[in-house]
Amino acid sequence: MLLEAVYHQPKSQYAYAYDDETLHIRVRTKRGDMDRVSVVWGDKYDFQESTITVTEMSIFTQDTMFDYYQAEVKPPFRRFAYAFKFEKGNRTVYLNEVGFNEEKLLSTGVGMLWSPSGMFEYPFLNTIDVKRPPEWVKDAVFYQIFPERFASGDPSLTPAHAEPWTSESIPTRTNFFGGDLQGVIDNLDYLEELGITCIYFTPFFEAYSNHKYDTIDYLKVDPQFGDNETARKLVEAAHERGIRVMLDAVFNHSGYYFPPFQDVLKHGEKSRFSKWFHTRELPLSTNPLNYHTFGFVAEMPKLNTENPEVKAYLLEAARYWVEDIGVDGWRLDVANEVDHRFWREFRDTVKQANPDAYILGEIWHNSQAWLMGDQFDAVMNYPVTNSILDFFIKDEIDAESFMSRLDATLIAYPKQANEVAFNLLDSHDTPRLLTIAEGSKQRMKLAVLFQLTYTGAPCIYYGDEIGMEGGPDPGCRKPMIWEERYQDQDLFAFYQTLISLRRNHRALRDGTFRFLSAEKQEKFIAYERTDEFNRFVIVINSSLNKQTVTLNEFGASSFRSLNDEE
Amino acid sequence: MLLEAVYHQPKSQYAYAYDDETLHIRVRTKRGDMDRVSVVWGDKYDFQESTITVTEMSIFTQDTMFDYYQAEVKPPFRRFAYAFKFEKGNRTVYLNEVGFNEEKLLSTGVGMLWSPSGMFEYPFLNTIDVKRPPEWVKDAVFYQIFPERFASGDPSLTPAHAEPWTSESIPTRTNFFGGDLQGVIDNLDYLEELGITCIYFTPFFEAYSNHKYDTIDYLKVDPQFGDNETARKLVEAAHERGIRVMLDAVFNHSGYYFPPFQDVLKHGEKSRFSKWFHTRELPLSTNPLNYHTFGFVAEMPKLNTENPEVKAYLLEAARYWVEDIGVDGWRLDVANEVDHRFWREFRDTVKQANPDAYILGEIWHNSQAWLMGDQFDAVMNYPVTNSILDFFIKDEIDAESFMSRLDATLIAYPKQANEVAFNLLDSHDTPRLLTIAEGSKQRMKLAVLFQLTYTGAPCIYYGDEIGMEGGPDPGCRKPMIWEERYQDQDLFAFYQTLISLRRNHRALRDGTFRFLSAEKQEKFIAYERTDEFNRFVIVINSSLNKQTVTLNEFGASSFRSLNDEE
Repeated sequence: MLLEAVYHQPKSQYAYAYDDETLHIRVRTKRGDMDRVSVVWGDKYDFQESTITVTEMSIFTQDTMFDYYQAEVKPPFRRFAYAFKFEKGNRTVYLNEVGFNEEKLLSTGVGMLWSPSGMFEYPFLNTIDVKRPPEWVKDAVFYQIFPERFASGDPSLTPAHAEPWTSESIPTRTNFFGGDLQGVIDNLDYLEELGITCIYFTPFFEAYSNHKYDTIDYLKVDPQFGDNETARKLVEAAHERGIRVMLDAVFNHSGYYFPPFQDVLKHGEKSRFSKWFHTRELPLSTNPLNYHTFGFVAEMPKLNTENPEVKAYLLEAARYWVEDIGVDGWRLDVANEVDHRFWREFRDTVKQANPDAYILGEIWHNSQAWLMGDQFDAVMNYPVTNSILDFFIKDEIDAESFMSRLDATLIAYPKQANEVAFNLLDSHDTPRLLTIAEGSKQRMKLAVLFQLTYTGAPCIYYGDEIGMEGGPDPGCRKPMIWEERYQDQDLFAFYQTLISLRRNHRALRDGTFRFLSAEKQEKFIAYERTDEFNRFVIVINSSLNKQTVTLNEFGASSFRSLNDEE
Repeated sequence: MLLEAVYHQPKSQYAYAYDDETLHIRVRTKRGDMDRVSVVWGDKYDFQESTITVTEMSIFTQDTMFDYYQAEVKPPFRRFAYAFKFEKGNRTVYLNEVGFNEEKLLSTGVGMLWSPSGMFEYPFLNTIDVKRPPEWVKDAVFYQIFPERFASGDPSLTPAHAEPWTSESIPTRTNFFGGDLQGVIDNLDYLEELGITCIYFTPFFEAYSNHKYDTIDYLKVDPQFGDNETARKLVEAAHERGIRVMLDAVFNHSGYYFPPFQDVLKHGEKSRFSKWFHTRELPLSTNPLNYHTFGFVAEMPKLNTENPEVKAYLLEAARYWVEDIGVDGWRLDVANEVDHRFWREFRDTVKQANPDAYILGEIWHNSQAWLMGDQFDAVMNYPVTNSILDFFIKDEIDAESFMSRLDATLIAYPKQANEVAFNLLDSHDTPRLLTIAEGSKQRMKLAVLFQLTYTGAPCIYYGDEIGMEGGPDPGCRKPMIWEERYQDQDLFAFYQTLISLRRNHRALRDGTFRFLSAEKQEKFIAYERTDEFNRFVIVINSSLNKQTVTLNEFGASSFRSLNDEE
């Protein structure tokens, strides 16, 4: 046994409440090292030989180095004291909070009442602390819209300097095409036909740029897109079709033309907004930059979310759009650079306005610190994005490594965070999927197939479904192609089929996910998704060569090819 | 290199802000495995060969299995992207968020702007999230008083059924002796002479029992002890002598005679307090118990701190004693069974009333989930208690294991939590120190010497300093012995000397702590505490035999024996 490989941390992603009565207990061991791993548990005030339970754990995920065991337990009095028991051949080793012991389960310590003070503890399952993301997200298929580029529905709003909207239009960092909210309302039929159930809008509040990440007024729709009434109309029309709406909260920084920032630029120390930003000194200087910004972008000054006035302003915006306009969620831009304290208050505000609102952090990195229940429901699942791209699109990793990297995300967070993770393959920040795939529709389809049959909520970037291409920003932000002759109808049908399959079968959304095959140096995978009604077995070959895959237990007749050309 | 032994978790006790500009980055490796470990870091938006820094880490703590490396870094833009570099012989291995790589520092991922998406990140050092315990605790020496047993100052309050207060008095679970708050006021001279700087009171709010952990009214001093004016007088008189006061917040459960509980007992569902407790069903039954309690004690019903009314009531108590009466801190009884959400609001309430108030959780187990800055300043340091008892008092572990177990606490929490940890050796919940030592004053002195020269704030249980003995509750709760002929004056002088040494030399309170010797199978240790003014080297022999210890660098003349009899 390699004891140095064993890892457990109480009250973390290794020991958390899944619901009001269930705890998930996890432990890490070296891959393939143990014959059997169990959790030995009981009530913390009655931990005796006669009352303790030994529950065998099972491997719920693996990576190239480790096995991760998990057990689900329901402590009758909501209190939980525990240790682990590792078995290999003739050897048995126990691990409790004090350390490893080869002989017996030691209960070291001065002892408090009947408390076994050497045990790990989940002291009490308080229901208010249980992480509880909105249920609807498990069933959702998101569709990301960049408002300036999806559709123009009200020509009167189109900026005078806008360029013509054609299938040949070339976006630059600064040009405009005239997309607006009425354009989205006019095309809800299209979205309904595709089958998506939630629109994620990149920002549509008043801002200077075409991407609107440089907010001027957080409480107002950008006049190029309509007004707050158009937004309300849009939300209502979408809701009537069973489509929800998520907005983009750019609370890390404002735009250069945000009036409080302009005031500080002008009045320095004397500005009544002098504490609204992360300034290093006053007066402000953009060169050298003497205030904190997003990246090193002088036009995006970092908001001081520690300041009560700033907090009140932003939280009012968070409340307003949810409560007064009816939106169903917030995607939080650059979420990990804003303080935790702000996000806790943000969560309270938003959930009070609508307990079912979805709170999604934009974090590209390990997000455990935001996902324990007090801050976000989920994060944008970039580790899954990267893994899907590397395996299906770029052909850079083998099946085992693909599995390993997906599994790393499963162990990194409580299960309920992964169930509502936001699985995107591309966005306004990256090249388009088909472009990353160097035009290979085959590869693109494999990636989409996986995305739409994996755990978590998939998101489609507008236009991907009709074969739009485009490199990194600004290339990926072309105006949506509406002329049918330039739309890839086969691809659209492929998306439609997969979305409807997912929507019709709970197993594909919220069922158990399990790899059946993901081997070293192989380029194919097989996995299953199961619920009480259905069992789907999906086999995907990501190599250029034909591959014969033998899976026991199944007759060939049960299979259906989703990709007839291959 | 044993890569399976390596552990790091971003935004945790392995990567946290120590102050407004400093991050502590830690990583675990197998003990003795590496030649050199470094952290490779830069700004997340400008992570290039030319701009990254390589900082060598040093081993800051060890246990029997692992080395724990730490580096202190100050990212100029408060943003931090990093990876680790491990070197051993000719081999170099890098670890970033994606995993290990033998060749070079890979930056895998789709890449966002200039973000190196494969790196670990501390995305932004927001000052409001920095854990910042009150500075005064580093300098404090606590003294724990069980109010019913310290001193009687107002005979008119003494219960009629109280027993005589003599050095022979035998406490039972139910008898009374008549201690009160005036008795504490009357003996502040004594406490000042001893040298302590903060009194920690077990509960003195109105309650039924002699220990007062079964509260009836959280806003009122128990009539046996005085009234709220006596409490205010006590706090003022203590403050005049530079002595602070910490109270006991028993917010996990109330007493049986708490009026809202009585109301629920009587009126069941119809009680307006029906949601104030963790009831499983109504009407309430004590046998079988159908409501949650502390342990299985029917007389201590668990308060439903999720209920807004309960929360408002308890938070008002938290505020009142700090703001209106002037107390300096709260010790939180059974802190880990109350919800995290409650404690976050509790912290806000208390720190608003007095930003310098100390918030101390009673947790006997790993407390990382409460110590990241949003909940408690520190916890009662039972792992240190147990280690000191096992090494100095019970003679059960060797020096290496002692060091190892102390070090486990250092790596378990951010440094600032350990700097203000509450180091007790016994309490009203355990046998007295001298009794655990089976009457060996020698052993007791060694434990106290270590306690008073270790990191964190020491606490003395009333009467230990004059040699009081007593077994587990109720034995450890004898009335304080005030007759000088029954007080051990030598022991008192020993405490006095050590306390004054600690108070006079910052190195002993807040200096660097480092073991110089702590070897396998040995029973002696040597350690140093250093600041810019002083360097103390302390050698303690815990065995029955004389021990010759050779420490290089020091002349014999620099040493002073604190324990002349040995």
